[in-house]
Amino acid sequence: MYRQYMAQRLSHTSRSCGHGSTMEILVKGGQIVTMDSNRRVIHGDLLVDGDRIAQVGGLAPAPARGVKRKVVDARDRLVIPGLVQTHVHLCQTLFRGQADDLPLLDWLRRRIWPLEAAHDPDTLLASARLGCAELLQGATTTILDMATVQHTEAVFEAAAESGIRAHIGKAMMDLGDGAPPALLERTEDSLLEAEALADAWHGAEDGRLNYAVAPRFVVSCSEALLKGAAQLADKRGLLVHTHAAENQDEVSLVIERTGLRNISYLDSIGLTNDRLMVAHGIWLDASEMDILERSHTRVLHCPSSNLKLRSGIARVPEMRRRKISVSLGADGAPCNNRLDAFREMNLAVLIQGVASESPLVAMDALEMATIDGARALGLESEIGSLEVGKKADLAILDLGQLRSWPQEGVSPSSILVYSAGASDVTLTIVDGRIVWDRENDTSNPSLMREAAAAIHRIRARAAMT
Amino acid sequence: MYRQYMAQRLSHTSRSCGHGSTMEILVKGGQIVTMDSNRRVIHGDLLVDGDRIAQVGGLAPAPARGVKRKVVDARDRLVIPGLVQTHVHLCQTLFRGQADDLPLLDWLRRRIWPLEAAHDPDTLLASARLGCAELLQGATTTILDMATVQHTEAVFEAAAESGIRAHIGKAMMDLGDGAPPALLERTEDSLLEAEALADAWHGAEDGRLNYAVAPRFVVSCSEALLKGAAQLADKRGLLVHTHAAENQDEVSLVIERTGLRNISYLDSIGLTNDRLMVAHGIWLDASEMDILERSHTRVLHCPSSNLKLRSGIARVPEMRRRKISVSLGADGAPCNNRLDAFREMNLAVLIQGVASESPLVAMDALEMATIDGARALGLESEIGSLEVGKKADLAILDLGQLRSWPQEGVSPSSILVYSAGASDVTLTIVDGRIVWDRENDTSNPSLMREAAAAIHRIRARAAMT
Repeated sequence: MYRQYMAQRLSHTSRSCGHGSTMEILVKGGQIVTMDSNRRVIHGDLLVDGDRIAQVGGLAPAPARGVKRKVVDARDRLVIPGLVQTHVHLCQTLFRGQADDLPLLDWLRRRIWPLEAAHDPDTLLASARLGCAELLQGATTTILDMATVQHTEAVFEAAAESGIRAHIGKAMMDLGDGAPPALLERTEDSLLEAEALADAWHGAEDGRLNYAVAPRFVVSCSEALLKGAAQLADKRGLLVHTHAAENQDEVSLVIERTGLRNISYLDSIGLTNDRLMVAHGIWLDASEMDILERSHTRVLHCPSSNLKLRSGIARVPEMRRRKISVSLGADGAPCNNRLDAFREMNLAVLIQGVASESPLVAMDALEMATIDGARALGLESEIGSLEVGKKADLAILDLGQLRSWPQEGVSPSSILVYSAGASDVTLTIVDGRIVWDRENDTSNPSLMREAAAAIHRIRARAAMT
Repeated sequence: MYRQYMAQRLSHTSRSCGHGSTMEILVKGGQIVTMDSNRRVIHGDLLVDGDRIAQVGGLAPAPARGVKRKVVDARDRLVIPGLVQTHVHLCQTLFRGQADDLPLLDWLRRRIWPLEAAHDPDTLLASARLGCAELLQGATTTILDMATVQHTEAVFEAAAESGIRAHIGKAMMDLGDGAPPALLERTEDSLLEAEALADAWHGAEDGRLNYAVAPRFVVSCSEALLKGAAQLADKRGLLVHTHAAENQDEVSLVIERTGLRNISYLDSIGLTNDRLMVAHGIWLDASEMDILERSHTRVLHCPSSNLKLRSGIARVPEMRRRKISVSLGADGAPCNNRLDAFREMNLAVLIQGVASESPLVAMDALEMATIDGARALGLESEIGSLEVGKKADLAILDLGQLRSWPQEGVSPSSILVYSAGASDVTLTIVDGRIVWDRENDTSNPSLMREAAAAIHRIRARAAMT
């Protein structure tokens, strides 16, 4: 399948000006929200040279002889770092709306697992393509994705062709508890497949794609699988991506089996460290919070999913006070039901207004969705802010909508977090390549046709009515 | 000012096909979410004749001789009843982003009241125009609005020219407690002005505009003012629109002054009945909940505002179980920061996921934003659903966006509440008139210029930096 994809890729004309060329992109005259260490907002040009940022602010000089330069007009527009979502499931994009109004374990057992089990490589490709397109069109340029158990190469292929920056890993599951047989693996097979996928994809596309070892959650993983995952990750220097402490019933199941709560258990078997990415982290006791702080484990906060699945509200202000890394993700499309980083930023602030004595402000959310997300992935020297020398991952927003108006005296962080939305994004660049341009995009109708056909096949196979 | 407006109005060509003409609008081939008593979703035509709905579903017959008919293509689109927002403040639209990250009483005293006090008729007109346009462009066709203390005719004028259906009332305030002098009135003057405004505007525009008596909240109203407001409303059959039980500090102030909690106090002085519209209703004890149920007082739920101002979460599922009327509103633009009924529907469901044992589902939110809002205003026989004989208030949505896709097996209520947004609306009709058409709209740039100039003047006057 990868070879097939590479053949397509090489013949795809829109990517003919790839890396290594002398192509420049000049983003002209915008208001640049740098998210640098001083959180500066600068008016002026942003110059992209190859895959890197060459200038931020001021007036860009004329291009050197022989250098091609594309100019993008950003006057009256906001230029922001590409947003980072550290917890998504591209494999579930097709399941949007198929699992409303259910709490986590019912949501998984009755709807999501049967649907995931019904994926074939083509439907998974369609699902991941739709998700990547929605993400890029909404300014998200980097994701940490948990695929399903099978056909993970299809998710990598979709990410590769879309241009998104991604860490992806197959979901690992070797324990039953309501999962369909097609999702259950032998422990050793799971580990071998994960390693083979890491061999094939870690560092692919000039480092834009990477592998993350992804044991689904304690409930569906034996201790042998979790330890094996940790060993693989340690050996190869990979991230480990899992879910924990999302839901009270899940916590009870973990205690029943292990005698410990989620984070305490993961700590006891050696998984907690600064490469462990834990989605949700809602139901934590004091000692688990201490473990997160001490071990530098990363928490991936998904506010819309946590509300829709009736999970609870993570104690994000306390975590941030304790310097525990918190970044944001939309989770899968059936949890919200859209992959919109702006909505996650908005909700992250809003829900703390009724959950915490020291709520968040707009800038907190913008940090979580940019530089903190980059840091969680170990990429803070490459992405997460607009600074000279960093990778050119950015988006341009047209905020000339009534809902973002008027703007005198209003900070860009307020506009971005409280007023803006994915539909305001006009252009997205990843790794120095324009991966989406609203004015010239023609790909959505075919993506949508492909998605409609794919969910039709899946629903028939999964006998959903 | 009204005369000036009427002269403009009569010369305005886009309104030349007004009521009483033989104009028909055929909304062709859409998926019609009727919100009738069976909540039917019907595929087919919707025919508008004058200001009323003449047919829902099926194929419309050819127009009679001499009847002009405009055809609007709704294939692959959703046709929904115009959304009803029962608590907004058009006067605050210009203050979007001017009062972030503050709880209610600071938000009022430090930012909103000084800004309101700095309004002149022109800035208020600009604020209300911007708000009406944002609302109509987002499918909201009916509002209950609380203006500021002065210049209320400007809000009526903006509502009249925009085409929105509105109940509007001047905010009444005769007690200090942090309010600037310009917002404080003598009790009698306040009542006289309210009555004069009701004389001028109640039933205007063929009944599209109405007056609602609007004592701001107990904290800023003497008992004499509240009783006078109730008498005026009783005498004229008007709605009373106020705030109560939004915030714990506000509840304390009310108890301090009156010895009673909000609803108990309003009940003790004769305000509670089925024409009392109470925004928020968060901090209620058991006896207050009983009063709401017994008196048929209406609760106006503003989830985004309640979160952003850190107020709390209203017990909406319990209210709905007890048949207490709950409808939705975005509150003012500085509380959310956008006047988007889709976001309110979405949050109304999501926040109950962590607040209630029996959370809401998508259809609950859609009911609150349509037929329940209509019923709260006493307009359920005229608006709130798409049925033959009702007023033609409706909106058309293009849900061909990635974030609403795929749709097989997904209910329209799920798409509307979880995936859709104001930016999906393509056309809005109120009272049989097309009040917004995305393809042909050219008014936003001038509205935005006017708004920018107005907030600049207000900030200078209010010495905001």
